Amino acid sequence: MESEIRERRIRLTVAYDGTNYHGWQIQDNGVTVESELNRALGELLGVPVKVEGASRTDAGVHAMGNVAVFDTASRMAAEKFAYALNHRLPEDIRILRSEEVPSDWHPRRVNSRKTYEYRIYRGEFPMPLKRLYTHFTYRPLDVERMRRAAQYLVGEHDFRSFCQTGAQVQSTVRTVYSLELEEQGPELVIRVCGNGFLYNMVRILAGTLMEVGQGKREPESMPDVLEARQRGAAGPTAPACGLTLVGYEFLQHFPQNFPN
Amino acid sequence: MESEIRERRIRLTVAYDGTNYHGWQIQDNGVTVESELNRALGELLGVPVKVEGASRTDAGVHAMGNVAVFDTASRMAAEKFAYALNHRLPEDIRILRSEEVPSDWHPRRVNSRKTYEYRIYRGEFPMPLKRLYTHFTYRPLDVERMRRAAQYLVGEHDFRSFCQTGAQVQSTVRTVYSLELEEQGPELVIRVCGNGFLYNMVRILAGTLMEVGQGKREPESMPDVLEARQRGAAGPTAPACGLTLVGYEFLQHFPQNFPN
Repeated sequence: MESEIRERRIRLTVAYDGTNYHGWQIQDNGVTVESELNRALGELLGVPVKVEGASRTDAGVHAMGNVAVFDTASRMAAEKFAYALNHRLPEDIRILRSEEVPSDWHPRRVNSRKTYEYRIYRGEFPMPLKRLYTHFTYRPLDVERMRRAAQYLVGEHDFRSFCQTGAQVQSTVRTVYSLELEEQGPELVIRVCGNGFLYNMVRILAGTLMEVGQGKREPESMPDVLEARQRGAAGPTAPACGLTLVGYEFLQHFPQNFPN
Repeated sequence: MESEIRERRIRLTVAYDGTNYHGWQIQDNGVTVESELNRALGELLGVPVKVEGASRTDAGVHAMGNVAVFDTASRMAAEKFAYALNHRLPEDIRILRSEEVPSDWHPRRVNSRKTYEYRIYRGEFPMPLKRLYTHFTYRPLDVERMRRAAQYLVGEHDFRSFCQTGAQVQSTVRTVYSLELEEQGPELVIRVCGNGFLYNMVRILAGTLMEVGQGKREPESMPDVLEARQRGAAGPTAPACGLTLVGYEFLQHFPQNFPN
């Protein structure tokens, strides 16, 4: 009599250079991070496998710590998946950690803190070594003005003005725990931590703060931008290459209330 | 009666991502930084132009401030060459500055201070966003040991042990003004400033210091390595991708004694 095959759920922490991918989510055409992970897992395990990702990053967006889960009956030690998958992945995708989680754990159905960085390179000309991971601007930015504007965006707000139109979500209320600007020489890093982000929200935050830094908007106008609850009230969507998903902090390991 | 066409000498400060180039110097096959600069200048000026570079960096080595000169009868304002050339160069090469220099000024015939950085990424797995500009190691490095070893290498020494064999030079004596190790999170930066560097010298310095950091060599063995005056006494040549020529400081604008 055969014993039942118990499937385990494995969680992957995934880093990637998004430059050469059509984003995370599987597309009809074009290679994506998700399709590469499924391919590598299929090759490793000999059966079709589908990962479920935490964040479906857009084309060109990078990650140092996106998260995905999959189920498998394989008896391989959970921490070995990172090594085995890295052998089968291109060098612009790396599994940084693999571990077993409860079988009902899902990265989009738990409370979490998510951190993004948006990097701006300031100079007369772009720096080739930074071109893939920063957004270049030759326009001067008043960082103190940007910091003043950022303060208005921290907290629980309806961020509908910072959501790409057409996105389907139940609620556009999100909590931004922190929104900091750090100067690293010619690079200006906008670092934002929140319980969740609407579609293109970080890139629209970055585009809006850049307009504040250029003197096109007043820092004190941010409450009005939030209040307007329409995309047109905020600034442009900053380019994808400047954005990196830094990582997740999961607040508990069982399903709970979560935004959206 | 025609007035004589006076040629001016223009100095370019050049940054590049060396990933996709066969180094600086023109090769029989393969695109180089020098060949791209000559092509762009030829397109801009309508006549063949040949630049003379300060440092002939190897395949895969990066630069934030290499230097080149060329002569031209063009009346274009010197500072405009940067803009005009950047329009004609691929985005992994950028001219950061263009300026007129005396017609006998040559970047390899003046005293200069040259700064290189060798970047090491330390972790269990490589970080995709850093893979092109750092050398990855999962082996622990004792940075304090590396700092102690570095102290022995500062000053005027015969660096023949740190010179790739086969290189033809008059003298292998060089002065290292400073050799510092800086930790930037998971990145370890070896920053070295000197009056000149032998072929592969910085990469051999990095490879040797890494062996010290791994406990394979004693910091106090560095005087013996110098004394040996043979390549086999030093450590391996660290990979090209970790190396970046940060820049030059020219100590005067007229020809003088210079190493080699």
